[in-house]
Amino acid sequence: MAQGKAYRIAVIPGDGTGPEVVREGLKALDAVAAVKGFKVEKVHYDLGGERYLKTGDILPQGVLDELRTFDAILLGAIGHPDVKPGILEKGLLLELRFQLDQYINLRPVILYPGVETPLKDKRPEDIDFVVVRENTEGLYAGSGGFLRKGTPHEVAIQESINTRVGVERCIRFAFDFCRRRNAGKKLTLCGKTNVLTYAFDLWQRVFNEVAGEYPDIGTDYAHVDATCMWMVKNPEWFDVIVTDNMFGDIITDLGAMIQGGMGIAAGGNINPSGVSMFEPIGGSAPKYTGQNVINPLAAVAAVQMMLDHLEERPAAALIEKAIKKVVARDIKSLSAGRMGRSTSEVGDLVAEYI
Amino acid sequence: MAQGKAYRIAVIPGDGTGPEVVREGLKALDAVAAVKGFKVEKVHYDLGGERYLKTGDILPQGVLDELRTFDAILLGAIGHPDVKPGILEKGLLLELRFQLDQYINLRPVILYPGVETPLKDKRPEDIDFVVVRENTEGLYAGSGGFLRKGTPHEVAIQESINTRVGVERCIRFAFDFCRRRNAGKKLTLCGKTNVLTYAFDLWQRVFNEVAGEYPDIGTDYAHVDATCMWMVKNPEWFDVIVTDNMFGDIITDLGAMIQGGMGIAAGGNINPSGVSMFEPIGGSAPKYTGQNVINPLAAVAAVQMMLDHLEERPAAALIEKAIKKVVARDIKSLSAGRMGRSTSEVGDLVAEYI
Ligand SMILES: CC(C)[C@H](C(=O)O)[C@@H](O)C(=O)O
Ligand SMILES: CC(C)[C@H](C(=O)O)[C@@H](O)C(=O)O
Repeated sequence: MAQGKAYRIAVIPGDGTGPEVVREGLKALDAVAAVKGFKVEKVHYDLGGERYLKTGDILPQGVLDELRTFDAILLGAIGHPDVKPGILEKGLLLELRFQLDQYINLRPVILYPGVETPLKDKRPEDIDFVVVRENTEGLYAGSGGFLRKGTPHEVAIQESINTRVGVERCIRFAFDFCRRRNAGKKLTLCGKTNVLTYAFDLWQRVFNEVAGEYPDIGTDYAHVDATCMWMVKNPEWFDVIVTDNMFGDIITDLGAMIQGGMGIAAGGNINPSGVSMFEPIGGSAPKYTGQNVINPLAAVAAVQMMLDHLEERPAAALIEKAIKKVVARDIKSLSAGRMGRSTSEVGDLVAEYI
Repeated sequence: MAQGKAYRIAVIPGDGTGPEVVREGLKALDAVAAVKGFKVEKVHYDLGGERYLKTGDILPQGVLDELRTFDAILLGAIGHPDVKPGILEKGLLLELRFQLDQYINLRPVILYPGVETPLKDKRPEDIDFVVVRENTEGLYAGSGGFLRKGTPHEVAIQESINTRVGVERCIRFAFDFCRRRNAGKKLTLCGKTNVLTYAFDLWQRVFNEVAGEYPDIGTDYAHVDATCMWMVKNPEWFDVIVTDNMFGDIITDLGAMIQGGMGIAAGGNINPSGVSMFEPIGGSAPKYTGQNVINPLAAVAAVQMMLDHLEERPAAALIEKAIKKVVARDIKSLSAGRMGRSTSEVGDLVAEYI
């Protein structure tokens, strides 16, 4: 918050349209830094599919060690059409989340005025909630294996590993976050207690226990299947939702859709006592790469979340205002190629409004 | 198909509004049997929460053995507010699916003319696909456990078990089903290959292999998170979707919502060479129980699916026509309490139109 503060930001533009949108995110960052009088030192890292294809490197230990020294990380997108699914996702994106112990994936789902949602009769006041997704365990632990692989008797097992420590810190974060939010102050646990009777038994027990320490916060429970239905039918029922890694992955993408699509959806991978990483969640969108048509607002929103996390709240608010203005005034759609403006024009407008 | 044929149907009304909606489903069944000249013998079973609370019985072996002898089973709903989550679901509903080896859960997602979808700009021709959900393994295997339960070092593990046999028979069913469908003839595998690199590696390999035997059918792949987004944004992209048990649970409920809600959504638990079970998928809806306000059309649609499965195609078509007529003419909404008609009136109208 202090005038004259300086931040060191690691920038990983990544694959596909990642570099294009990150460029516009950084434009916004520079603009707001100038206005608010703080400094930003940016160090770029060329991690991603291209480097992997050229050198075989995914995330060298030395780079990982360097990344730990930054105030935050801004990530563009990971995913390359010539690399087998799983390699970059697991080796880079998930590896960063796990190694940096970013145990929260924070996804605001907010419909801005002027943005089109695919849902009938839903207005901005109806779509305004946050998903707190556990980000370092569950089915994402990568645990499992094959028996008799390639034979008619093959068995493939994938394990969801949930620890008391991992579940509790996530649920506590969610309660704390809910308390700070100016909304209905209700935390909904999203799970599948009636079928996943080990994993969600632990989640439910910890949730009930921790809830006792937050008497000011209402609690609720919804099965993941019902959660998806309600997100479409009654998104206004939600304030903060906490859930595991896999269900979080699913409902946050559904959330991105109801808030108008990937063009505006950003997320934070948070380690409250370490280095956090912020990203537009749209992916690398290979087919739009290099065309200057992708919507960079999600990357701008990622910068906003990053500043919020760095407690540069007025700067974050300024960016949010600029996003809302562009959305309401300047672009025809949030979708790539249909904005009526180019990627860099949108970035310029954001910077101008700041 | 033959005139004068006789079917033995086991009826499990179950909990909550189950008995009310099953009653109307049977009205439709009797009406269509009279018109088409086949006989139906119905045997009721009082399985469900009430019986469990009174006797401790969930699914006695004797009953299970009897159930195997029927031509089909019609189920109302399972789930009782006084019974801990998981007991009836696992002990009865999932137990039936598993013990009777109903390895397919078939869920048509069809928007009927006159039905309101929560999605903007989507018409009946846009929402018309079928989900083929694996129904006997994956995370539903019930495999897993606790380590150091109740301590700060607790670990809870839940395992997704996928077998070559289970995956292959499901994928084959989906290809065959897709071939019989009068639509775009495209089968989409819904998974999470980039993270669940054991479970969906098997699914992907089997899918690709079996696809070779069906050159007339287009194939596609979508991550489960993307599938949810597209179901909301571009449901017209789908023809038949095949997926595992857990993801199937999630996307079929989302499917029910976009087709207008639980009031109309039915599913079949299919064992192609054994006894299959058909159900409205709305659950037991305790708060509407006994009020004669719940929409019975999903149970009627379950009867339609059952007749289709028994190869009484004209009878099934007659029921479908009647449902469409009621929806287009007689009810104001598909939601419980907002139909403008009572449960039994809707059932009477269906019977009348048949
Ligand atoms: C790319 C993929 C591994 C990732 C995930 O599944 O977590 C993405 O979908 C996300 O939600 O950030
Ligand atoms: C009641 C529950 C166990 C069940 C499931 O998860 O399969 C239901 O949601 C369904 O989809 O039939």
